[in-house]
Amino acid sequence: MKRREIVVGALGAGTLAACSQERKPMGEQASAFKPVVWKMVTTWPPNFPALGTGAKYLGDLITQLSAGRLTIKVYGAGELVPAFEVFDAVSSGTAQMGHGSAYYWKGKVPEAQYFSSVPFGLTAQEMSGWLYFGGGMDLWREVYAPHGLIPFDAGNTTVQTAGWFNREIKTVEDLKGLKMRIPGLGGEVLKRLGVTVQNIPGGELFQALDQGTIDATEWVGPYNDLAFGLHKAAKYCYYPGWHEPGTVLECMVNQSAYEALPADLQAIVEVACRVTSQRMTAEFTARNGRAVQTLVDEHGVEMRPLPAAVLSRIRVVAEQVAQELAQENPAAAAIYDSFSRYAKQTAAWTRMAEGAYLAARHADL
Amino acid sequence: MKRREIVVGALGAGTLAACSQERKPMGEQASAFKPVVWKMVTTWPPNFPALGTGAKYLGDLITQLSAGRLTIKVYGAGELVPAFEVFDAVSSGTAQMGHGSAYYWKGKVPEAQYFSSVPFGLTAQEMSGWLYFGGGMDLWREVYAPHGLIPFDAGNTTVQTAGWFNREIKTVEDLKGLKMRIPGLGGEVLKRLGVTVQNIPGGELFQALDQGTIDATEWVGPYNDLAFGLHKAAKYCYYPGWHEPGTVLECMVNQSAYEALPADLQAIVEVACRVTSQRMTAEFTARNGRAVQTLVDEHGVEMRPLPAAVLSRIRVVAEQVAQELAQENPAAAAIYDSFSRYAKQTAAWTRMAEGAYLAARHADL
Repeated sequence: MKRREIVVGALGAGTLAACSQERKPMGEQASAFKPVVWKMVTTWPPNFPALGTGAKYLGDLITQLSAGRLTIKVYGAGELVPAFEVFDAVSSGTAQMGHGSAYYWKGKVPEAQYFSSVPFGLTAQEMSGWLYFGGGMDLWREVYAPHGLIPFDAGNTTVQTAGWFNREIKTVEDLKGLKMRIPGLGGEVLKRLGVTVQNIPGGELFQALDQGTIDATEWVGPYNDLAFGLHKAAKYCYYPGWHEPGTVLECMVNQSAYEALPADLQAIVEVACRVTSQRMTAEFTARNGRAVQTLVDEHGVEMRPLPAAVLSRIRVVAEQVAQELAQENPAAAAIYDSFSRYAKQTAAWTRMAEGAYLAARHADL
Repeated sequence: MKRREIVVGALGAGTLAACSQERKPMGEQASAFKPVVWKMVTTWPPNFPALGTGAKYLGDLITQLSAGRLTIKVYGAGELVPAFEVFDAVSSGTAQMGHGSAYYWKGKVPEAQYFSSVPFGLTAQEMSGWLYFGGGMDLWREVYAPHGLIPFDAGNTTVQTAGWFNREIKTVEDLKGLKMRIPGLGGEVLKRLGVTVQNIPGGELFQALDQGTIDATEWVGPYNDLAFGLHKAAKYCYYPGWHEPGTVLECMVNQSAYEALPADLQAIVEVACRVTSQRMTAEFTARNGRAVQTLVDEHGVEMRPLPAAVLSRIRVVAEQVAQELAQENPAAAAIYDSFSRYAKQTAAWTRMAEGAYLAARHADL
């Protein structure tokens, strides 16, 4: 992989102090920079809860912090380009900015999937640790550089549900022949267990499930699933979301557009992405809680745990899939090496921290 | 409680768009505002890992984003005022800003403890959901307003360890007569189980433990505990940190100083606190993992789980303590009402999300 030098990460671990001393006063920079308007294209339905509104929040925050010197106009999926053309649109400069998730581009950049979510991989909090203090962010930048793109962490779904099913899952055998929408590596895992896997944009999910084009779908979590009304089209909702335990949402920026910004506006873009990530994680956590209560109390949904034997089998296949992706190319190998070493070390601690704590908090007395 | 009007929360859920339209262009505001230098006093040893360096990062980020119009000079504990005088120093205007955690002020504002951490309460991610999407932040502002202070969420320790002990804990009986440093509500819980509870600043912990002034101490987590060398002064390290499952670190700002800032600098203070919170959570997650490995592999520390029966008993007492604090005054009652309703709803979802997921990930196959 060709590596280009990119001037980013002013706020990364350890680099801030050095950078801040080199910065010019804002007034000097501002006077030389003519205000611009950027287009942000997204993979989400316009103003879709947390995802679309998160992208809108990000755009508004940049506009606000820059006092309008950098104004962001946000487009929902299909308003300027279709959902799955966001990567190309930002790469080519049709738009300067995009919001989505890296696994949508697996056809072009298979190793990008590691930066969304790995089945049986890291939670939101752990992903954040890898990106900012485990080398993940640097690797991600290297992967996107040949496409003229700079990626930022700009959201997280937190642990998702396993999905909505019109077939009961009692054993691994029940997965066979199932037609399910599930993107990324999670889809690859289920494919190996006999599922016919599809990826279709969120906006088309309800209809596909309702009309029987698919038998099952995962989407995000209770808050977003409720917004699409998936409970009206499927009988069972299973948990936990083994396939996406902490999916990172990305903001990608066209590299030329980014480099044309003065340093203070570059810092504002980075800061705004981080605040959006922090905010979206909080939002999903709070609103998923409310949505589950609504699903159960008002819509009579029965939330079901996937049987332990099914999860065990899936976990074995998930590890194989993550490992095999590393063989795609040298970049994938380097990412998997970093990811898996970090994951092993961090999981050992999480087991004693969040793991042991939640087990004690939720145990029957 | 007297409520004062405070103009904050420009970046809070749902309020951004409205506020951003009212903001004046930055140039206009900047021209009217003469650059200032603020003092930030902290409860942490100077440059102590993650806590002290986090406060320094926050100060530098504000300085950078404001291009020096608001420069923050950071002081460690004892450099300007002692650790436990930070609240008074910022309230009186001796310093404009402080970094610490709200339970340190329980002598003055008992209900502030809910904004640090509640034993058997919320994790870092759940706390963030309560503060930003569950009404917590507004309640916190009301509590600090009579003291001329505005609080911000500016860090989180994530799940801590239960502490370092020179006595083995096999049953609840083993807690009796133990002299332990443990602040906040966790201390109150252990007091009821026969522990002689003390609170002393972090910087004095090693000596107290090493000289036998105390038999046990909790501090933060593996990364910080290792930095103090607590493993050299105690035999056993227990987990999980039931007493502080996600302790929020605060940045408090003198209200008059804050209100003298133009709107864009106010927004920068708020944004910088949120980024610091996001960054510190990532830092602790990644570095605690590394530190545990160092403690175990290089220092031969045996990490021990607290016995289930001990945790069960503690959980019952913890619930009583959190509930009784609500009877202190009407503000405490209002906070506990919000906190406990949110906690109940959120824990029901976390059980299906992070809880079920981590159990499946960590299960023996």
